[in-house]
Amino acid sequence: MSQHDQSTVSRRGFLRAVGASGGAGAMLATMGALGLAPGPASAAPPFRAPTRADFSLSGRSCARVVILGGGVAGLAVAYELGKAGYDCTVLEARARAGGRNLTIRGGDRETDLDGRTQRAEFSDGIYLNAGPGRIAQWMVTMDYCRELGVPLEVFTNANADAWIYNESAGMTAPVRYRTAKADVYGYISELLAKATDQGALDDRLTATDKERLLSFLQSYGAIGGRTSGFAYTGTGRRGYLSYPGAGDEVGVPLGAPPPLADVFASNVGRYFSFELGYDQAMLMFQPVGGMDQISKALARAVGTRRITLGAEVTGVTDRGGRVEVTYRQDGRDRKVTADYCVATLPPHLMARVPHNLGADVTSALADFPVTTAGKIGLEYRSRWWELDQRIYGGITETDLDLAHIWYPSYGFHGRRGLIVGYYNTGANARVYSALTPAQREERAVTQGVKIHGAKYRTELATSYSQAWDRTRYLEGAWTSPRYGTAGYGRLLRPAGRVYFAGDWLSREVAWQHGSFVSARAVVTALHERVMTN
Amino acid sequence: MSQHDQSTVSRRGFLRAVGASGGAGAMLATMGALGLAPGPASAAPPFRAPTRADFSLSGRSCARVVILGGGVAGLAVAYELGKAGYDCTVLEARARAGGRNLTIRGGDRETDLDGRTQRAEFSDGIYLNAGPGRIAQWMVTMDYCRELGVPLEVFTNANADAWIYNESAGMTAPVRYRTAKADVYGYISELLAKATDQGALDDRLTATDKERLLSFLQSYGAIGGRTSGFAYTGTGRRGYLSYPGAGDEVGVPLGAPPPLADVFASNVGRYFSFELGYDQAMLMFQPVGGMDQISKALARAVGTRRITLGAEVTGVTDRGGRVEVTYRQDGRDRKVTADYCVATLPPHLMARVPHNLGADVTSALADFPVTTAGKIGLEYRSRWWELDQRIYGGITETDLDLAHIWYPSYGFHGRRGLIVGYYNTGANARVYSALTPAQREERAVTQGVKIHGAKYRTELATSYSQAWDRTRYLEGAWTSPRYGTAGYGRLLRPAGRVYFAGDWLSREVAWQHGSFVSARAVVTALHERVMTN
Repeated sequence: MSQHDQSTVSRRGFLRAVGASGGAGAMLATMGALGLAPGPASAAPPFRAPTRADFSLSGRSCARVVILGGGVAGLAVAYELGKAGYDCTVLEARARAGGRNLTIRGGDRETDLDGRTQRAEFSDGIYLNAGPGRIAQWMVTMDYCRELGVPLEVFTNANADAWIYNESAGMTAPVRYRTAKADVYGYISELLAKATDQGALDDRLTATDKERLLSFLQSYGAIGGRTSGFAYTGTGRRGYLSYPGAGDEVGVPLGAPPPLADVFASNVGRYFSFELGYDQAMLMFQPVGGMDQISKALARAVGTRRITLGAEVTGVTDRGGRVEVTYRQDGRDRKVTADYCVATLPPHLMARVPHNLGADVTSALADFPVTTAGKIGLEYRSRWWELDQRIYGGITETDLDLAHIWYPSYGFHGRRGLIVGYYNTGANARVYSALTPAQREERAVTQGVKIHGAKYRTELATSYSQAWDRTRYLEGAWTSPRYGTAGYGRLLRPAGRVYFAGDWLSREVAWQHGSFVSARAVVTALHERVMTN
Repeated sequence: MSQHDQSTVSRRGFLRAVGASGGAGAMLATMGALGLAPGPASAAPPFRAPTRADFSLSGRSCARVVILGGGVAGLAVAYELGKAGYDCTVLEARARAGGRNLTIRGGDRETDLDGRTQRAEFSDGIYLNAGPGRIAQWMVTMDYCRELGVPLEVFTNANADAWIYNESAGMTAPVRYRTAKADVYGYISELLAKATDQGALDDRLTATDKERLLSFLQSYGAIGGRTSGFAYTGTGRRGYLSYPGAGDEVGVPLGAPPPLADVFASNVGRYFSFELGYDQAMLMFQPVGGMDQISKALARAVGTRRITLGAEVTGVTDRGGRVEVTYRQDGRDRKVTADYCVATLPPHLMARVPHNLGADVTSALADFPVTTAGKIGLEYRSRWWELDQRIYGGITETDLDLAHIWYPSYGFHGRRGLIVGYYNTGANARVYSALTPAQREERAVTQGVKIHGAKYRTELATSYSQAWDRTRYLEGAWTSPRYGTAGYGRLLRPAGRVYFAGDWLSREVAWQHGSFVSARAVVTALHERVMTN
């Protein structure tokens, strides 16, 4: 046991003791004081990358590993094993590494499963993160950005000045987040203050509790005092038609809120819990210059000579002492032999690859329900959302089939900019993926005009849309693993000399964090096997 | 009336009509649909900068203007008048322009009113915004950044992973914002759901309202259903001791929340309304590279030859047809004569300058209560708050005398970083300003260790503290104007040929927005006078 491990155990022992005597609250408080709560992302035990010293000190030699799929998981496996000198080969069917970590720039071209070719015509400096777009502070993805030297900037996951628009609730115009929050928090504060003051909660609250609660509600809801019945009658938090200015220009507030029943009927509050999520709460981050700065940095660290592009895997055979992988590249069948294999293809695609790993493996791979998602990048000739609507980043939420609209987190005040005109999943995504790219643009723009007005159409320069279910060698956005089943458990163990990795084998599906931690788990298991064989 | 004005009036007329028939809600909805709510910051009528054409078309000639004070207001006056060719001279007593728009970098040196000299030893790339630090999206400051080509980035005004620490409430360790919000929102949702379900609010809510409210509360508070009494029992939103990982690592949630009474007693909720403020709600912004990028860009646009530094104003005399301003520079008395003067010194300092503008002007100037504020920049040898505590920006709130602690919004994952170790006002600020810089650092660090642990002390490299009440030629952070008094109104009008401008003559004191809009108001009035004389 290393010094590091001992220190970890010792601190854990201490915390267990605190937890036993003082309950979870005391333990948390103590951990907070130690700077441990919540700590770095890795679950216990902390990941330790293989090193060259592991071999030089033991006299063993590195193994050869073939990795199927050059997405984040595959690249991370090659990167971590490469630190110890493993001889890795990554087979990637697509024309570039990165998998769903895909950033579209001007000049990018792709033909989908329906034979439709799109070429992105974006201007210099404009990009669309077609796959993952954000990173939470606790995610191990942050650590890889640091280690790989990928600069980060804030991803604007929430903005008080973005819109909410629920057409099905009868809204005829959007409302700002700040206004919606002021009204919902105002009314729930009024209601709870009244109920509390009238003694309706006396079985739950002491007099001291009540006093503290009322004090909180008056601050939180900006409501009146007892004599006014704790009434919510609006506040500057709703926003202003004209903000305060010079001299005696006190500004023109938006005015009185709609009646309570109208606010609840509009259902604007349905979006408020999003930013409380453990995985979505601000602050969130993105790499400067596009999410693919991560996959590019990984690929550079792995070495491009170790990454074979355009290589479609056609078979995996465990030969006992080695693994043979066949693939097709440029119309020719090829083969690579290695000591071990790590398969990181999406499970529904890996299920179609002929292999001799057993029927249980095939059925396990085929048992991942696949979700699709879509995004469209709309490049505009001006940043009218900043100049006219004072929206500098953030997300507009809707009940339209486009679901979410993202304003760019980069290039503020630039000449042009890119809005993600839809980011939707499931049935909504399939509606769009069934359309041609031109039809998708038309549909997205028609919907977006309802919220943003005419410039949403008139300022549009060009667009590019990503339909993940129609994307070759991916055929989906992410999966919904059947946790706890024998099939899921089967793939957490190697099948002979073949290991499986990917976000689909993690508890953070659809996040790069999931890909990284799964890659680390396989690297740890494989290296342990090599070191003990 | 120009085309632009007509279009504005026409839209306003339309909105008044909507407002009359449909109430404020309908008007707001319509304005939202038009992209007008809330629009750019300027109050009606929109600001129109003077132009050279105003003179060339009218045959009039530009005036000479002397501007007292080279802070944001003074520079903005010179900048806007300069667009039309006015001959402006800015007299600035300090060694650099910018006023309270002050960014401290390594090598900066300043001697305070007590004769204490500090020299900042910050590393390259590290800076402290000692004055203003953030900009709201609606503020006209954003427009000046665009016009002047000052790039912007997000100012991290709120972060779910920052701490809350209320020592006076008996907290022995800090709690994350995300945890505090989960618990407070959870319990208030439970309470309101119970009261609603038991009919305590039936006089205020219809059956439909109740159904919608309960649905919202279940989402917002992550509470149980009716059968569980809508109980709040914790959620992943509280955060994790160990976040979800690979395979079967579901993560270790922080666990059950403290009892309701403890959560209210901790008073963590007192900070939640901050981020709902019309002036503080995220997203907020800052110039890349320091707030003084704004004042530097303004000074460049004005022309450094027009800015006289080290010039302490000693007298202002209105001679009827001209204004004479005397000042002291390098130990010598000097004089400048101009057609007009714009005085932007802090009012309590301007009140001490001899003049012949009348006793009412002096008493009005002397009637601005002055608030002080302080900040300390703590440069650390490592970014331990990012690496150990996973805090990438944001603000920790406390009831300690340091009040707020800011984590840096720039340089994520860099080698070093700067924390604002206190940002306090009033009595708390005076406690620190009475200390020597070394004592301030010691006091701030001792307090900060309570929240952050030992590295808050051991990793510290150097510090620089700003006490605004002890800063020469400023002697305060901002004022609290007596709006509505004759004195305040007096200063909104020129005294003969002398105008007054500054955030202290605006409805946004302590914001650069206030300085800019006040400057614009004076520029408009002065130019109109010149054009009609």
